[in-house]
Amino acid sequence: MVSVIKLNYPLKTRAKYEKSVVDYRNRGMSLESLINRANEYYLEEDVAVIYKKPTPIGIIDVDYSRNKITNAYFKDKSTFDYNGIYRGKYIDFEAKESHSKTSFPLSNIHKHQFTHLRQILKHGAISFLIVNIRNEYYLLKGEDLIDFISSNTRKSIPYDFFRENCVRIEEKLRPTLDYLKVVDVVYFKGE
Amino acid sequence: MVSVIKLNYPLKTRAKYEKSVVDYRNRGMSLESLINRANEYYLEEDVAVIYKKPTPIGIIDVDYSRNKITNAYFKDKSTFDYNGIYRGKYIDFEAKESHSKTSFPLSNIHKHQFTHLRQILKHGAISFLIVNIRNEYYLLKGEDLIDFISSNTRKSIPYDFFRENCVRIEEKLRPTLDYLKVVDVVYFKGE
Repeated sequence: MVSVIKLNYPLKTRAKYEKSVVDYRNRGMSLESLINRANEYYLEEDVAVIYKKPTPIGIIDVDYSRNKITNAYFKDKSTFDYNGIYRGKYIDFEAKESHSKTSFPLSNIHKHQFTHLRQILKHGAISFLIVNIRNEYYLLKGEDLIDFISSNTRKSIPYDFFRENCVRIEEKLRPTLDYLKVVDVVYFKGE
Repeated sequence: MVSVIKLNYPLKTRAKYEKSVVDYRNRGMSLESLINRANEYYLEEDVAVIYKKPTPIGIIDVDYSRNKITNAYFKDKSTFDYNGIYRGKYIDFEAKESHSKTSFPLSNIHKHQFTHLRQILKHGAISFLIVNIRNEYYLLKGEDLIDFISSNTRKSIPYDFFRENCVRIEEKLRPTLDYLKVVDVVYFKGE
């Protein structure tokens, strides 16, 4: 990955080569994996401290002799998956893949998560969704999501809404999904 | 609980009565339960949005027909247990019970957690430990913890250190462990 940069091709050629590398690397990688990788990169480079919360699990039986959980179940989530600190601010967001090419179904977001979003925005959090639709990644501001719900009876957000109202997260080499670059544009304009 | 306040006893009597109620309610309640209750209270009263992170678990086998996890194990923690937003700030902390009456063993804190503490402090987080020692609850600032480690070869923090350098969290009726009141004193002096 780094060696590609070191080859020092003429700029145009390099850009082309990098693009093909990016496409190859990304193919089939889930949005969650892309964000986890970005977070590892941000941590290593001391850009931000952001983690995915562990999946909430209800534990019923533990075999303590082997330190093994033998009976457990998945609990519902009431918050978003990722949170942490960036540029001194509390950041809290969720990643969602849309399986439809025409719109993002709002049923993807639990009712508790909407409540959570309203609560943290009120306290001054930076909060958003990262939505993968048609293999394009958009940052949907929490405030825009709430506005959409309040002013629409639609049960999904059309693809065009993302194109017209959200900033797209461009894929690059490292990290592949540099979503904090878009956070800079959207939340820290010109700072 | 609320009815106690509504009885409207003369102040002195009420204070006495409340104290006995507090003692009774707290007896045997773990520090984790006390903090979870406080966080529920803060959420209800719209004071702060702070959650305990789910325990990280590695899943090996799932019986999808019954939506049941049949084989899993506890993973090591690399961050602190609680995080969220308070007064617009990122807050991130850990709760620890000391079983010794004379000191708090530093082996209670994992190496990864010290790294985590340093990282988040650098980014501007409010971070601390809440330590239960002798059934007294102290807020130990992350900065003070790091100073202690740098300037000591001791493997534990003596009880007197807490008494002399930390603010004690007084128990009250609701929430029982109002730790954000101490956060106000320590981090938002006079604001």
